Amino acid sequence: MCRWLAYSGSPVNLEDLLYRPQNSLVVQSKHSRLGAETTNGDGFGVGWYGEMPTPGIFRSTEPAWNDRNLQELSAHATSRRVFAHIRASTGSAVQQTNCHPFRHGQWLWMHNGLISGFRHLKRDLTLAVAPELFPEIEGSTDSELFFYLALTFGLEEDPPTAVARAVGLIEETGHKYGVPNPIQMTVATTNGETTWAFRYSSEGRSRTLFHSADISTLRAQYPDLPVLQQLSDDARLVVSEPLGDLYGAWQEVPESTCVIVRGGEQELLPFSPAVAHGVR
Amino acid sequence: MCRWLAYSGSPVNLEDLLYRPQNSLVVQSKHSRLGAETTNGDGFGVGWYGEMPTPGIFRSTEPAWNDRNLQELSAHATSRRVFAHIRASTGSAVQQTNCHPFRHGQWLWMHNGLISGFRHLKRDLTLAVAPELFPEIEGSTDSELFFYLALTFGLEEDPPTAVARAVGLIEETGHKYGVPNPIQMTVATTNGETTWAFRYSSEGRSRTLFHSADISTLRAQYPDLPVLQQLSDDARLVVSEPLGDLYGAWQEVPESTCVIVRGGEQELLPFSPAVAHGVR
Amino acid sequence: MCRWLAYSGSPVNLEDLLYRPQNSLVVQSKHSRLGAETTNGDGFGVGWYGEMPTPGIFRSTEPAWNDRNLQELSAHATSRRVFAHIRASTGSAVQQTNCHPFRHGQWLWMHNGLISGFRHLKRDLTLAVAPELFPEIEGSTDSELFFYLALTFGLEEDPPTAVARAVGLIEETGHKYGVPNPIQMTVATTNGETTWAFRYSSEGRSRTLFHSADISTLRAQYPDLPVLQQLSDDARLVVSEPLGDLYGAWQEVPESTCVIVRGGEQELLPFSPAVAHGVR
Amino acid sequence: MCRWLAYSGSPVNLEDLLYRPQNSLVVQSKHSRLGAETTNGDGFGVGWYGEMPTPGIFRSTEPAWNDRNLQELSAHATSRRVFAHIRASTGSAVQQTNCHPFRHGQWLWMHNGLISGFRHLKRDLTLAVAPELFPEIEGSTDSELFFYLALTFGLEEDPPTAVARAVGLIEETGHKYGVPNPIQMTVATTNGETTWAFRYSSEGRSRTLFHSADISTLRAQYPDLPVLQQLSDDARLVVSEPLGDLYGAWQEVPESTCVIVRGGEQELLPFSPAVAHGVR
Repeated sequence: MCRWLAYSGSPVNLEDLLYRPQNSLVVQSKHSRLGAETTNGDGFGVGWYGEMPTPGIFRSTEPAWNDRNLQELSAHATSRRVFAHIRASTGSAVQQTNCHPFRHGQWLWMHNGLISGFRHLKRDLTLAVAPELFPEIEGSTDSELFFYLALTFGLEEDPPTAVARAVGLIEETGHKYGVPNPIQMTVATTNGETTWAFRYSSEGRSRTLFHSADISTLRAQYPDLPVLQQLSDDARLVVSEPLGDLYGAWQEVPESTCVIVRGGEQELLPFSPAVAHGVR
Repeated sequence: MCRWLAYSGSPVNLEDLLYRPQNSLVVQSKHSRLGAETTNGDGFGVGWYGEMPTPGIFRSTEPAWNDRNLQELSAHATSRRVFAHIRASTGSAVQQTNCHPFRHGQWLWMHNGLISGFRHLKRDLTLAVAPELFPEIEGSTDSELFFYLALTFGLEEDPPTAVARAVGLIEETGHKYGVPNPIQMTVATTNGETTWAFRYSSEGRSRTLFHSADISTLRAQYPDLPVLQQLSDDARLVVSEPLGDLYGAWQEVPESTCVIVRGGEQELLPFSPAVAHGVR
Repeated sequence: MCRWLAYSGSPVNLEDLLYRPQNSLVVQSKHSRLGAETTNGDGFGVGWYGEMPTPGIFRSTEPAWNDRNLQELSAHATSRRVFAHIRASTGSAVQQTNCHPFRHGQWLWMHNGLISGFRHLKRDLTLAVAPELFPEIEGSTDSELFFYLALTFGLEEDPPTAVARAVGLIEETGHKYGVPNPIQMTVATTNGETTWAFRYSSEGRSRTLFHSADISTLRAQYPDLPVLQQLSDDARLVVSEPLGDLYGAWQEVPESTCVIVRGGEQELLPFSPAVAHGVR
Repeated sequence: MCRWLAYSGSPVNLEDLLYRPQNSLVVQSKHSRLGAETTNGDGFGVGWYGEMPTPGIFRSTEPAWNDRNLQELSAHATSRRVFAHIRASTGSAVQQTNCHPFRHGQWLWMHNGLISGFRHLKRDLTLAVAPELFPEIEGSTDSELFFYLALTFGLEEDPPTAVARAVGLIEETGHKYGVPNPIQMTVATTNGETTWAFRYSSEGRSRTLFHSADISTLRAQYPDLPVLQQLSDDARLVVSEPLGDLYGAWQEVPESTCVIVRGGEQELLPFSPAVAHGVR
């Protein structure tokens, strides 16, 4: 399906983040190791926070490995918080408005996975989006609609609850139309200060998700690795698949879990869908 | 906004149709004479009927004047029925799924104009689309949604009535949201055998529309013009603006009119929106 | 590197040719079995002969597996002679003018492989192109330059000799700059009536190349396969890798060989580079 | 042909520079006032200097007025030195490698105008490029080749002399092939510290070029204009056409002139082509 990474910490050059690692996201666009598809060539996107309140997003329909503008932007931009995503379409059109991350105000959202039977569920789910948010939907993907459902259910106030309610509605709607396992997801969202990442699937066999280990521990373990000296203690990555083979650097996020990254602190909470009734 | 042409008659080479005329559609993409915008550079599309039951559509986000693939396709394709459209976006994204003509089965649809206040009307109009048609909507334009409303109201059985009901619903919805003149339109639609073209606007000052004169009359009038010898007697064009300055070749379609072109026969009927209540 | 196919025979629908086979060229764009790269996602091109003397070419920088216009064109075009190519760039820009097949008058050319050390050889080779042909070069690839060298050396009169002389010059120039194995190639070229295909490499370990077996033999062997009934006796394919697993359908072209396909006749000749001195 | 601007001074947000002015470069992409063409929709490019020694370049084949990534980049990037260009092709392909500015190390180059009879002159001019620079040429335009000629003639040491020699060679070559007025140009080039801009044409009727007036004078003249308070005293613009109607803000660069902008200082020197013989 797709691959993504979410970084927060000391300002990082985007080229160091997206191109330099052994198994970088750009490498994964052509040769993913753990993905459902080895090729993630149906567009990409980068969201980064700078000095403006709203993050920038750079999205293109070209494969990431080809895109010269991505390389230029990456070489010249640094950021304390970066979302990056490479896409393998599950059917919807390859167009910029279908590329992740999606943005609403200061919020970013990206998704790996799919809503099964989306063709059948789409109308009901679309109607559940708050009317004032509805005109902002620009693309045709399940992922963007999922974002607008989460926004409808209060993402900006309480992300774990809002995502739980959105997932609850998707599962409920799926079951109404006889879809056995309506959702498969790893999701990341941020308001520019905290990142929430989710790993969940209706069938209980979710796409992989990893978070980075504590940098200071790694630094003690590998005193000779310069990259570890550059990063601040609070630097954290959440990724679809490890960016390299460094032993101890990556920990798998368990099934049905929400990871909250705030500064250098990381919290893992159990995640389960909430029953959606009572909403709109 | 946009410019379009609808051709039917003896098989015509697409290059002769789209590139050769003095004020061809490709010329209009850079320098429209009568358009609300002189530049129509936000993508284009061509729909053509060949030997398959379903027409082909070739659509691109590049300006038509630049597109080499359009030139290649045009040089090598001939067709008895062609729809071509150049786009000047009124706000929605420049992406292939927003390019006209839109297709549903054997039907094509293209539109010049806009639904005013679309941001406010979009949700209500989306909900009025038949649920079984809903998942086919791929883009984000008012024009595509208008097509699916017309399909919902029976376009495939009775086009003038279906379009009248769709326009009625758009005006009714517009008034509900306080939009003074909800629709501005010239529209063409075809099932591959008959073409229906409409000129209408809520304010009664619609975008221009012209139909070609009888070829045999023109031929008598201009015996030395080879292009007129090549075309069959039943060849007909409906266009946003004349393709050249030939006196007598073009007749303006009156306000609030539906033109029906079937073989060499052409019929002009008054068009007015129908009240839409009672539907879904 | 790349993958290609060259078809000649009874008129074939391009969709049947490019999409239907089990291991079709479009499938190979994402998952090549025998290629140096599994992904051939850096653009594609199709050249087809219709009723015009000059073939049409449709080329795009998008991955073939994504391109809706390729699918539309393929569904609606039939041709007696088709060249199709999917690209995996070896470094030069992903742009339309670098997509194969290249065209000169009625001639088409496509190439899988590379000129090694092209950065160093490019200037000398460019100077060897006939001055009157020079301004036609539009892209920056080794493959297009190779085509113009072959044209300079008389491709239009005697293809095997012209290609042999071009390869001779490339090897001679490579050796001048200390490049050990200057060329790796499978090449196809046609004038619309005959196809010449070449398999050669300086190191003697060339990219794979296959030609189809005699259709009437296959038909006798597999009386129940409808696809074989549709094709004329003179239908022939030359391909980078087999389009399916049908036993006996594909024969490998030996190293250092030129295949000539004229109507239903197929001739295999030994191929070796010619010393190029004496030219311009 | 094209339109461009060259900015240097206090760090400016690219959105303020490229989108905000009344007659901004993005506005000019659709409606140029003084250009040979009103539409400059054949791609665009921005070069900007940040903290890296080499400038970033962002180039695209889409019309600038449509490009969302340009808008995102502009909103989030600030720079002390910006080159921006919108293209109206005079025949060569619309592709990223043909978009200005062109880059070599720390140098940027952009051009409005053309080499007349380029088809005939191209080979001779290509051969005059230094062999070690030759492989860097990626596109097919006259403008990029002009840049590599200037580099060959010592642009990095003495820009006015190098450009004079390049123009001399172009004119000499033009005359050899019977081209009456071989060059039409406004050119800007920079090494990141100084900007050199040239206005010249063989016929003596060159494309327009303007430089901004002294900011402190303007500030005294218009005390109520906030934009003038934001800019530093040494801020300078050189532009194809004025960005607005502010009286006294723009001064036309005379024919056959080289403008040198270094910090807040501006020098105008007469420019004339140098005889090129003796070179390579």
